[in-house]
Amino acid sequence: MTYNSIPNPSLQVTKDHTLEIKEAPVERPGAGEALVHIKATGICGSDVHFWKHGQIGELKVLGNCVLGHEAAGEVVEVGEGVTNVKVGDRVAIEPQMPCGTCFLCIQGDYNLCEKVDFLSVYPCHGTMQRFRKTKAATLFKIPDRMTFEEGALCEPLSVAYHGIERAELELGRGAMICGAGPIGLATLVLANASGAAPLAISDLSAERLAFAKKLVPRVKTYQIDPKLSPQQNAIGVRKLFGPTEEDAPPRVLECTGVEGSIVTGAYIVRRGGTLMVIGVGRDIINNFPFMHLSLGEVDVKFINRYHQSWPAVIRLISDGIIDVQQFVTHRFPLEKADEAIKLSSDPRNGSIKVIIEDQLRVL
Amino acid sequence: MTYNSIPNPSLQVTKDHTLEIKEAPVERPGAGEALVHIKATGICGSDVHFWKHGQIGELKVLGNCVLGHEAAGEVVEVGEGVTNVKVGDRVAIEPQMPCGTCFLCIQGDYNLCEKVDFLSVYPCHGTMQRFRKTKAATLFKIPDRMTFEEGALCEPLSVAYHGIERAELELGRGAMICGAGPIGLATLVLANASGAAPLAISDLSAERLAFAKKLVPRVKTYQIDPKLSPQQNAIGVRKLFGPTEEDAPPRVLECTGVEGSIVTGAYIVRRGGTLMVIGVGRDIINNFPFMHLSLGEVDVKFINRYHQSWPAVIRLISDGIIDVQQFVTHRFPLEKADEAIKLSSDPRNGSIKVIIEDQLRVL
Amino acid sequence: MTYNSIPNPSLQVTKDHTLEIKEAPVERPGAGEALVHIKATGICGSDVHFWKHGQIGELKVLGNCVLGHEAAGEVVEVGEGVTNVKVGDRVAIEPQMPCGTCFLCIQGDYNLCEKVDFLSVYPCHGTMQRFRKTKAATLFKIPDRMTFEEGALCEPLSVAYHGIERAELELGRGAMICGAGPIGLATLVLANASGAAPLAISDLSAERLAFAKKLVPRVKTYQIDPKLSPQQNAIGVRKLFGPTEEDAPPRVLECTGVEGSIVTGAYIVRRGGTLMVIGVGRDIINNFPFMHLSLGEVDVKFINRYHQSWPAVIRLISDGIIDVQQFVTHRFPLEKADEAIKLSSDPRNGSIKVIIEDQLRVL
Amino acid sequence: MTYNSIPNPSLQVTKDHTLEIKEAPVERPGAGEALVHIKATGICGSDVHFWKHGQIGELKVLGNCVLGHEAAGEVVEVGEGVTNVKVGDRVAIEPQMPCGTCFLCIQGDYNLCEKVDFLSVYPCHGTMQRFRKTKAATLFKIPDRMTFEEGALCEPLSVAYHGIERAELELGRGAMICGAGPIGLATLVLANASGAAPLAISDLSAERLAFAKKLVPRVKTYQIDPKLSPQQNAIGVRKLFGPTEEDAPPRVLECTGVEGSIVTGAYIVRRGGTLMVIGVGRDIINNFPFMHLSLGEVDVKFINRYHQSWPAVIRLISDGIIDVQQFVTHRFPLEKADEAIKLSSDPRNGSIKVIIEDQLRVL
Repeated sequence: MTYNSIPNPSLQVTKDHTLEIKEAPVERPGAGEALVHIKATGICGSDVHFWKHGQIGELKVLGNCVLGHEAAGEVVEVGEGVTNVKVGDRVAIEPQMPCGTCFLCIQGDYNLCEKVDFLSVYPCHGTMQRFRKTKAATLFKIPDRMTFEEGALCEPLSVAYHGIERAELELGRGAMICGAGPIGLATLVLANASGAAPLAISDLSAERLAFAKKLVPRVKTYQIDPKLSPQQNAIGVRKLFGPTEEDAPPRVLECTGVEGSIVTGAYIVRRGGTLMVIGVGRDIINNFPFMHLSLGEVDVKFINRYHQSWPAVIRLISDGIIDVQQFVTHRFPLEKADEAIKLSSDPRNGSIKVIIEDQLRVL
Repeated sequence: MTYNSIPNPSLQVTKDHTLEIKEAPVERPGAGEALVHIKATGICGSDVHFWKHGQIGELKVLGNCVLGHEAAGEVVEVGEGVTNVKVGDRVAIEPQMPCGTCFLCIQGDYNLCEKVDFLSVYPCHGTMQRFRKTKAATLFKIPDRMTFEEGALCEPLSVAYHGIERAELELGRGAMICGAGPIGLATLVLANASGAAPLAISDLSAERLAFAKKLVPRVKTYQIDPKLSPQQNAIGVRKLFGPTEEDAPPRVLECTGVEGSIVTGAYIVRRGGTLMVIGVGRDIINNFPFMHLSLGEVDVKFINRYHQSWPAVIRLISDGIIDVQQFVTHRFPLEKADEAIKLSSDPRNGSIKVIIEDQLRVL
Repeated sequence: MTYNSIPNPSLQVTKDHTLEIKEAPVERPGAGEALVHIKATGICGSDVHFWKHGQIGELKVLGNCVLGHEAAGEVVEVGEGVTNVKVGDRVAIEPQMPCGTCFLCIQGDYNLCEKVDFLSVYPCHGTMQRFRKTKAATLFKIPDRMTFEEGALCEPLSVAYHGIERAELELGRGAMICGAGPIGLATLVLANASGAAPLAISDLSAERLAFAKKLVPRVKTYQIDPKLSPQQNAIGVRKLFGPTEEDAPPRVLECTGVEGSIVTGAYIVRRGGTLMVIGVGRDIINNFPFMHLSLGEVDVKFINRYHQSWPAVIRLISDGIIDVQQFVTHRFPLEKADEAIKLSSDPRNGSIKVIIEDQLRVL
Repeated sequence: MTYNSIPNPSLQVTKDHTLEIKEAPVERPGAGEALVHIKATGICGSDVHFWKHGQIGELKVLGNCVLGHEAAGEVVEVGEGVTNVKVGDRVAIEPQMPCGTCFLCIQGDYNLCEKVDFLSVYPCHGTMQRFRKTKAATLFKIPDRMTFEEGALCEPLSVAYHGIERAELELGRGAMICGAGPIGLATLVLANASGAAPLAISDLSAERLAFAKKLVPRVKTYQIDPKLSPQQNAIGVRKLFGPTEEDAPPRVLECTGVEGSIVTGAYIVRRGGTLMVIGVGRDIINNFPFMHLSLGEVDVKFINRYHQSWPAVIRLISDGIIDVQQFVTHRFPLEKADEAIKLSSDPRNGSIKVIIEDQLRVL
């Protein structure tokens, strides 16, 4: 291995909320681990949030931490006993490392593990660096016909996939997506692939809705009017689906985390349906319409990340069932990762997904 | 039939919120209908609410309406084409009459039907009268070993049954019941019969908790401290189950409809579990802890009444699997139905279930 | 209405297994009923079976009976109280008329109703005639952009839809379809629309597999070798999916009803998966590998027709999510319905779906 | 630790199908392991089968192997890093040790793991010896109020528990148990605790049915008449439940593994219900009534052992919700384990569960 002599620049957030591009040490892989040359990392809203606010809920940046968890790359070294990947393999990375022994891990809900390590959550460094060691079990091979960018996009698509999976969309039955940001758009693309119909999406921004329409021409769009109440916006959305209760969508996928949107979603969903909360932005929600949800026996479900989604998402991309290349609106080299996150954090420039890439050939 | 000459006293609520005991007309059963001599009606909180407030949500008392919907009696006449019951049969009454043709009825969710008629919801008269005509399909035979009181109790037990059914309690796994009023106690009795373990129940009232303990000796009890926050009360409840997340109950059945209790329930439930909202008292809920529910992927479910529960509840009572006789704390003759509802409405006298009975022999 | 003067030719099977084209009486619609001018009827294997064998299981042709139950047409008269369709509406017909009152109907499983009437099952006449009266609730409007042929195809697609629905296909996870006859192909088209991947299909006939590949280019094909054992054919199929147990398809949809294919399917399905039996041809099956199914906890599920599938299937066709026009390989006018069924019954001429159409303008 | 000087007698089966009582080596616990002094082991039909036939399916006795996998004992030494148990703890043992890394383990179906080690399956020695080292994660503490015998019974109860869990029994709805051997009786006891009603059980033996009735007085019994066909016996069983299809049990739990009983079960189960196959005795089944199962959309489910059942079963026993002490009909000291298995293998002496116990005080 010659990578020892190759620099390992990284983008780090400090405990006092500043960004630093600096050289980081490279950890050698132990038993069951592999070292990956990170070729692409997508920037997530949580990266921006850690930088600007220094914490998300209970998770606090108490010291320097490399950002980034939407990643793909090339395996450059494997530790003892690793059989699922080998040097030279192109891989997408699942960034969560659960304990594997608690009751949640044992019952298959490892995404709910309370002792999970997560790339880019302090003190676990992320993937905005050239080399990152990780557990080999979190690496999934991607075929040559898939780009590293697509490999990195498996992470936000996994969030959407887990939401779609738990919402149990039905072929030929309606679904509504609230929010046309990266997660809303990922949800839209997957809902489209699942045959849910009719499909509609809402957002405050006409530009984002136009982008959604370009991604999935059959989707109907509704521009949220912030001057209207949730009930009034819900009436507007329901009109897209048809005049009767039966026409209303049995599945609503909420991807904004904003209270008004969540409440609107609660009024959109059909009796007997499901309100799937994919994005959560606040600790608590007010004005949640319990009586309305109760009369319709609407199930309210939530997700926390994903589990066992990489194989399915890789399959969907590599078989051409979904096309996610259009999500990438901007690209930056690793050495300019700080510029990338600054651009990503500014809503005015209309980025969807900004990718930090590393073109260096290591192997 | 000689019942034509028998008086038909009834308890009616007027549109200006007063109670009247008055003679009511007796409707003859048409095709598919039956006339029932009501032998027992339980008083529900909704009867009191209609009396005192003249409405529940959208449902308004716009004219005189006979109260009562928890009922059992004896069939005294059947209309054309009725085959499921005959004159002399002892029956419990399911008080909802859905349209039978909308998509919700067709898919088996007839309790969600938007065009449902419901006994005691204006303008559909209830069962606090001697004779009530109803659809024969809503009548379920009860065996001789079951009392009319028990037949009347099938209605509140059906509410609890539907909650238990949708919550999918598991044998040997924990369940928490919030609230020890009539619905909470009915839920407790059914949770006990379903083998969920351990079981615990909470309430503000030590008396109600003592009553719960008498009903189901193996239940643990927690007296809610109103000076504590929901999180703090949740910590207290969790201690009953054990020190770890795994010990926490995977099912929480909320039977109060009170915001503080609902939020407490959200903090009690185990990661990956279900918060089953059986009672809803307010249009909206504030302070609903979305982030917490999201991290644990807790499903929030609601019920609206019940469906196809009478056969199961009758079976449980008549086979002695549950004992609900203790629920009845007070009994009044039909002619004193107004006194019954007044007693029932006063929380100071510790009633659980007040029954209006009619001992007259008609057949 | 002028249709009274229009002849009503029909194709009837007699109790001694002959076919007759003869004039049939036209029944006027009563309350809740509608009269439909049948514009297209597809021929089903069961039509051929009733003709050649005079019975299917318990269902016997004891007198003359008009064949046909895959149908669409135009409403020409409506009875009292009909609101869901009006004269001139183009409609697809759900051919089952359940009792609506048994416990199965009430719980939403009306397709399991024991007292169901079914178009073309003696003594209930079918749709291979110009005019057929039916319950208005079994009629579903189709938009102008959908042909009557597509309307007729809603029936076989509903069989496949119900199988797909009960099998709970998963986006990006594998599915195998055994059999490339009309139901297998309908299942393939719907599995494709649902995003299951990878997809494979098997059949004895290379021609049918080529047809499947033309319908859904991404499907992999396996030609069953009748000289091999089920286990051996299963090994061959599994190779299409990949080398490991994880690669094997978690859903196998059996569409042949043939014992060898069912047993093969049982060996194909992944541990923890589902064997969905869509086609059943024989009363009993031998050599069913219980130990193998048990070690893998494979769920074996069956379907009996469909329920509430027309709206979804109409949506999928009319929104262009599935393209089923290629299913129709032959067309005959109503007056030559006997020739149509004869052609359909002969496996040598490679028909997939033969349609009997009536071009007459009635309205 | 002084146990090094204590003899470790064991009951071993040899590759040529003989039994030997012989001294066995004691393995010291490594990291994550614990050494258990086995205080009670129940004899299972599989122990007898390995002895008499040298194999079960693919599992072959290729060398000496200690029998026994239904066990409980006392922890006498723990390896590095063990935190869930400590020396002196009384524990029940889950005898399966899955790989923990395959897709089945990761998704929570570790009982389906293909690389599982199982106590008493060659070359993994069982618990019919004084000391057995095992993974600490397979040990579950039992409270003092629970006996070691009850701890050992957790294993057959776990089989039944997993069947009950997957069958989704419903409170107040019927269940039928086919077979009153140890697994059938364990299933009965758990079905009773789950509130399924009415309950019935069938067997060829009147004695076993009487025993079942003693265990659960509310169960109805049906003695299978081997001269009748499965359909005829099914009619007899259905009469216990009532005259209509609705009365028939929606859940049938097959606990014999015998073809005639399985087919009978298929004819007993209600339309829309589930046939849960708990016992499988043969590689293949003939005469499986596919058409009948298809018309009723009966789900056929299987189990392979159990997962995460010990905590629930321990809870049910220790809280007194089930009483399983009566299962134990015979007890033998460890030194006479060969006599125990001989008695257990002889159907004439009416044993239900034979326990090998070790009264020696080690700690």
